[in-house]
Formats: sequence, C-alpha cells, structure tokens
Amino acid sequence: MSEIDRVVDAYIAIWNETDGDRRRDLIAQTWTEDATYVDPMLNGDGPAGIDAMTAGVQAQFPGHAFRRTGPADAHNDRVRFGWELINVASGEPLIAGIDIGQVTPDGRLASIVGFLDLVPDMSGAASS
Amino acid sequence: MSEIDRVVDAYIAIWNETDGDRRRDLIAQTWTEDATYVDPMLNGDGPAGIDAMTAGVQAQFPGHAFRRTGPADAHNDRVRFGWELINVASGEPLIAGIDIGQVTPDGRLASIVGFLDLVPDMSGAASS
Repeated sequence: MSEIDRVVDAYIAIWNETDGDRRRDLIAQTWTEDATYVDPMLNGDGPAGIDAMTAGVQAQFPGHAFRRTGPADAHNDRVRFGWELINVASGEPLIAGIDIGQVTPDGRLASIVGFLDLVPDMSGAASS
Repeated sequence: MSEIDRVVDAYIAIWNETDGDRRRDLIAQTWTEDATYVDPMLNGDGPAGIDAMTAGVQAQFPGHAFRRTGPADAHNDRVRFGWELINVASGEPLIAGIDIGQVTPDGRLASIVGFLDLVPDMSGAASS
C-alpha cells in the first residue's frame, strides 16, 4: 500500500472511530498540529477542532459509516479521493463527495477541502 | 453573474488568450502576486510563472481551447469546477479535469490545484 493510500485510509478510519481516545490518537498520527478542514457544512482547525467536528458528525448520523469510493489520485503533495457516508444496514449512500488533501513530507494531512456531490433531500424537513 | 463565476470565467479566458500582452493583463487582474498553480503535468508560481506555463500549453496544443464543463461549486473561499481542452474544429475533448481554487476577499485566485479525468492515450507514441 502506498503512503498516500495509508494516510487516506487513516483519514477515513478517523471519521468512523467512535471511541474518543482511539480517535484522538489516530488524529494525532494522521493530521498535522495546524491542520485545517473545510467543506460546505463543516470546518475544523487543529486536532481538537477536527476531533470535535468528527464527534459531531458521528452523533448526527448514527448507523452510518464513511468509506472511500475509489483509488487515491495523487500528484505532487496533493491527493483527491471520493467518499460516501452509507447507511450501514442498507448500504445506501446518504451523502457523497470528494476530498482534496495536502500531504506533508512525513505523510500527514495538512489540509482537506471537501465538496459534496450527493446531499440528503431536506426539502420536506421544514414543511408543516 | 456571481463574483465566483466571473473569476472562473476570467481564469479560463487566460488559458485561451494567445495575445501575450492581453494575457498578462488578464493574469494581473485575476491572480494574486503570490499565486500558485499545480496539476499532474504543470506548475507555475506568480504571474510570470503562470504566464509562461499558459504560453507553453498554448504552443503545445494549437487548434484547441479550454472551456468550463459546468457551474462553479463554491463554499467558503473555495471553488470547484470542471473543464476540458477541446479540439476547436471537432469539438472533441482531448484532456479534461477539475480545478480547485482558493479565492481572496477581493475576488482573485490565490491558488489552483488541478486533477485530470481524461488524458490523451500516449501508449503508441513511443512505439517504433
């Protein structure tokens, strides 16, 4: 497995790690101290911010898990990969998108910028 | 037209502007002084580096032009958009990909990171 695949797999594992201590250990190994994450719904700065963001998503989507949807496409210090948040029982994706990462020479994530390609239909949520 | 669409359109126009003076004017208006561009094949730093990179691509692909393939997908200070390099005569795409940009508060590009989804088949190019 390439270094890039290893860091992307660790990144996905963090989203799925609901044990706080294990998640924070993984974050410390995988992200840099001044890491940044931003997507259309979320943002988190540094290990503590990323940990809080991740725990919030886990609380919001019980019974769901993240998985990669394809290989890591890397060049220079950048990487692109697709992911989806699936309902574990049905296997159906609820949310899907791509992440663009910047990787340090020692194989840690300095930043992730996410974009969404599938979002839940909330159009009826606020209806009476 | 939104500010984001305007800057993305100007960015594409730079790739297609073969008049050096006009291209450098457009670059000065569109990119920041410390701008960076990187994709799997190219990189350029600052207005002069981006100008040289663009002129090189134009010389390499005469009879071709860049165009956007869809709307700009923006959040925070980031934008994603698809593009293709088409053969002007046939309309067929030769290269296609996505660009991820970071936009300054005054509406200029600070960085572009590109990824490729369609590349020319060069497998026969080195054959005897």
